[in-house]
Amino acid sequence: MPDRPVTACLVVIGNEILSGRTRDANLAYLGARLNDIGVRLMEARVIPDLDEVIVATVNEARRRFTYVFTTGGIGPTHDDITAASIAKAFGVALVQNPEARAILDAHYSPGELNAPRLRMANTPEGATLIENPVSKAPGFQMDNVFVMAGIPEVMQAMFESVVHRLVGGKPLVSRSVTVYLPESKVALGLEALQGRYSDVEMGSYPFNRAGRFGTRLVLRATAAGPLDAAAGELDGLIVELGGEPDWD
Amino acid sequence: MPDRPVTACLVVIGNEILSGRTRDANLAYLGARLNDIGVRLMEARVIPDLDEVIVATVNEARRRFTYVFTTGGIGPTHDDITAASIAKAFGVALVQNPEARAILDAHYSPGELNAPRLRMANTPEGATLIENPVSKAPGFQMDNVFVMAGIPEVMQAMFESVVHRLVGGKPLVSRSVTVYLPESKVALGLEALQGRYSDVEMGSYPFNRAGRFGTRLVLRATAAGPLDAAAGELDGLIVELGGEPDWD
Repeated sequence: MPDRPVTACLVVIGNEILSGRTRDANLAYLGARLNDIGVRLMEARVIPDLDEVIVATVNEARRRFTYVFTTGGIGPTHDDITAASIAKAFGVALVQNPEARAILDAHYSPGELNAPRLRMANTPEGATLIENPVSKAPGFQMDNVFVMAGIPEVMQAMFESVVHRLVGGKPLVSRSVTVYLPESKVALGLEALQGRYSDVEMGSYPFNRAGRFGTRLVLRATAAGPLDAAAGELDGLIVELGGEPDWD
Repeated sequence: MPDRPVTACLVVIGNEILSGRTRDANLAYLGARLNDIGVRLMEARVIPDLDEVIVATVNEARRRFTYVFTTGGIGPTHDDITAASIAKAFGVALVQNPEARAILDAHYSPGELNAPRLRMANTPEGATLIENPVSKAPGFQMDNVFVMAGIPEVMQAMFESVVHRLVGGKPLVSRSVTVYLPESKVALGLEALQGRYSDVEMGSYPFNRAGRFGTRLVLRATAAGPLDAAAGELDGLIVELGGEPDWD
């Protein structure tokens, strides 16, 4: 198990998300699943379907983070440019991948494998495929960059088929409590608690549910001992402030 | 009206979004509203509550884009560090803003304005406030950077209270159609259509609804004439392919 934190970046490729028409659902899934295996999602970037932006973003991300995941832009239409841009980012050619071609050949009846579908067999030279149990057309991996589909069901299936290739660090364990007290009432006590538990990360997230403001407090740590001790103290603090702690 | 495209970047500040626990709702709102006024959201970055990351991200974004919007981290708790980080990004001091202080003084009963709440009166020196009609504690603007709350209701109210400060370009108009045909069937015709309409941006977005795969095709342009002409041709193409165009 690596000593250093293992980090990841998600690059969401798609004008559709930026225009507000489609809501991304991949960030939440990836963030939670990476956490399970001790990889910390440190950044997510939503970018448009523009070649130079994809190249620059992926090249920056693959240097800064242990793993990079991209979603979107690997379908059969003219605006699906992710594979070509990743090839450019790595300075290699975009080629027809024989293994990907064989998968498509097996999936489609003769005559059905038209030119747009064949585009989905193209990967950067040297890529390793990522299996797509849902709709067959594969994703691919280049070094530490995992290129996946944008449709959540397909993205999730692809992620699960490559998760064994990832080497995580110590997973964070967490405890969360919801309380209908304003953040500003909890703030002083929480800060004092944070001061006493440097190895427990304490976050406070206000919310508004049906017009009622409340606070969600989240404690995260790599060890259960300090986490449970801090949670016990936080529970006492909330009760002392007149709140009713509702732990997940 | 500016001749050049007017661009924006959203910086979502919050460990909670990256951990997968909370889903961001601000990107979709901002993307759609900016589009209404002719500002194009070109990037969204979700980053953790880490001072050096906020400083570096905001400094990069404010140079690259016409406008930058941040959400999150301006509450009363110890993990709300956005104001201090923005001050650092601009190389100015974090100060108690007299106008913000007056707003909090007017809102809270005497004795209620405790130290954590007072933190919400701190802004970088020289900031202009952003009104918060929902819960009073204001956001602020520094040059082209707009610092807003993370709670969607509050963020939306803040955005609407500053939208008049933004100067947009030509808004994009769009037409969208949903069709239960695979992308790969539409791809060739769509690409040919794109070739004939260089001033209409054509996007194809596959989806899976209750196990049924379909495609959403979106046409966007700054002028209604070519948009409607392209939409007419696309409708014909879909029917020719045996699909039933369902226009929004």
